[in-house]
Amino acid sequence: MRPAAAGAGIAGLVAAAAEGDRRAVARLLSLAENNPAGWPELSAALTAHAVHAGPARPAQIVGLTGPPGVGKSTTTAALARAFRDAGRRVGVLAVDPSSPVTGGALLGDRIRMTELAGDPGVFVRSLASRGQLGGLALATAQALRVLGAAGYDLLLVETVGVGQAEVDIAALADTTCLLLAPGAGDGVQAVKAGLLEVADILVVNKSDQPGADRTVADLTAMLRLGRRTPQADGPGPGVVRLAAVHGQGIDILLGRITDHYQWLVASGELGRRRLARARGEIRTLALATVRARLADPAMEAALAALAGAVVDATIDPARASERLLSAAWSPPADASTD
Amino acid sequence: MRPAAAGAGIAGLVAAAAEGDRRAVARLLSLAENNPAGWPELSAALTAHAVHAGPARPAQIVGLTGPPGVGKSTTTAALARAFRDAGRRVGVLAVDPSSPVTGGALLGDRIRMTELAGDPGVFVRSLASRGQLGGLALATAQALRVLGAAGYDLLLVETVGVGQAEVDIAALADTTCLLLAPGAGDGVQAVKAGLLEVADILVVNKSDQPGADRTVADLTAMLRLGRRTPQADGPGPGVVRLAAVHGQGIDILLGRITDHYQWLVASGELGRRRLARARGEIRTLALATVRARLADPAMEAALAALAGAVVDATIDPARASERLLSAAWSPPADASTD
Repeated sequence: MRPAAAGAGIAGLVAAAAEGDRRAVARLLSLAENNPAGWPELSAALTAHAVHAGPARPAQIVGLTGPPGVGKSTTTAALARAFRDAGRRVGVLAVDPSSPVTGGALLGDRIRMTELAGDPGVFVRSLASRGQLGGLALATAQALRVLGAAGYDLLLVETVGVGQAEVDIAALADTTCLLLAPGAGDGVQAVKAGLLEVADILVVNKSDQPGADRTVADLTAMLRLGRRTPQADGPGPGVVRLAAVHGQGIDILLGRITDHYQWLVASGELGRRRLARARGEIRTLALATVRARLADPAMEAALAALAGAVVDATIDPARASERLLSAAWSPPADASTD
Repeated sequence: MRPAAAGAGIAGLVAAAAEGDRRAVARLLSLAENNPAGWPELSAALTAHAVHAGPARPAQIVGLTGPPGVGKSTTTAALARAFRDAGRRVGVLAVDPSSPVTGGALLGDRIRMTELAGDPGVFVRSLASRGQLGGLALATAQALRVLGAAGYDLLLVETVGVGQAEVDIAALADTTCLLLAPGAGDGVQAVKAGLLEVADILVVNKSDQPGADRTVADLTAMLRLGRRTPQADGPGPGVVRLAAVHGQGIDILLGRITDHYQWLVASGELGRRRLARARGEIRTLALATVRARLADPAMEAALAALAGAVVDATIDPARASERLLSAAWSPPADASTD
């Protein structure tokens, strides 16, 4: 296996991906998932391609999140099919922040989606956590760029679980759908995690099951109480009822997502969200750069000396960290345009 | 309430804490928990005090971790009492990485420990997460320094849950005890989270309950298989049986902790661990400094312009992050010694 390290290599992969080469897409996604050190190069190649390809409309990104067991995978698969039927080219990322490697559940999802797998207009991929939370959100952002460059214009991002990582990843989407199921607890958990705050569309899945009316009523009441009014000046708040496993309500959900996106575009909110996203990404990448610089083997001697001084209490850790930054830092030479 | 912001103020609090003023200890712990921006000052004051106080033996730090429900709080309380009976001054930190505010469980623990609360030789405090995981580990490190400066020479750190945050916090201890209870699942969870790797002493609590023999046998077998041999050249691996709620086994556990600490000192491993800890702390503080610098309002204009360029695809996010770092960075002037 030849490492795809050279700049020309990555640029070549991007060009191939844009022409429909699925293996090139898969290799670029692997770079996004596994090789944070290569993000600057990947990111530059994707931007260079975007400039070359001209002002294309960027892909629409839809997030699906919610507690385990609410049927996110079934909903994602049904939505992917529905958007495909509507003529969109659909990319799916299933992101699991809780698992250090791609786990059984996601693998199962992929198998469940094999009916779509033969369709060149669909690309499905799982991403798993390789350490820090921020790292996974950045990897997901890169993977979304890759799928966009490959011409998938409707991207579904499914996250498993309820936590800060899900909130971070939800922030990458233009429209975020929060899925809940009938029964107590899930809603509270989602509120605790702050997911309700980032949800644009609330979905009660398994709405053919007992307790669904109650859950819909509770969520509607919560919205009325003003905890959160999705799209306050947009299509209006509301809860979508779904029974994804029977395909019921998928058309309504797709309509809501489309309405929300049109509102995003018309209101200028889409631009604001993308700007906020770019800010977050720039900041996180800057921190990743510093982290890498501090972890550089060349810094080992300085760090070892400072750590010894801290243990001996001849310097305090905060001042030691300032010394380390001074030693680590030389203003970066602007990368030559290649 | 007067903000304890001035350097002299913090130095004064440290001096008062060292003389037994519990309110000063409490205020310093609040600074450690709530005010990351004040860490450099706090850290400098604590180091200055340590230099002034002369080469005292640093406090011994014992970590207790494990899945919810295994009886960590009961064990911590029993151990605190036993160390107190052995003449030690005992500080207890109960750290909850999963809760954004000090939650019910920790509050309950504190109430359960009130029998110790009237004793000036014991200080009990809960710390809750205020955002990033790394932040909580740093806050815990600062809180441990505060308790050490206040003359508590045996520090117990209890962490709730099983995850990366627990591993990070466990790394702050000289000796880490992993508590498990009879029954399936917990051990596997702990192994997945990497907790077994950082455990020096394995404890099966509730060992009077059914299934305890099996759990002890399983863990012993796991140790024999070489997954992990705590104290390979030390007191030898092994599993401690405990029924903390009845006080059974606490003396044995205390003995194991003491044996382990003596081995740490004699073998030089203690110095190595503290050096590794100092390295981690310096690095994390350096990153926190950079994060604060990037979040500085003065950087807003630069960041907004760069984010706009990223959205327009006239610059890629990685290069934008390098530009931001260049703009943010001026080599820090060495803080004047005050």
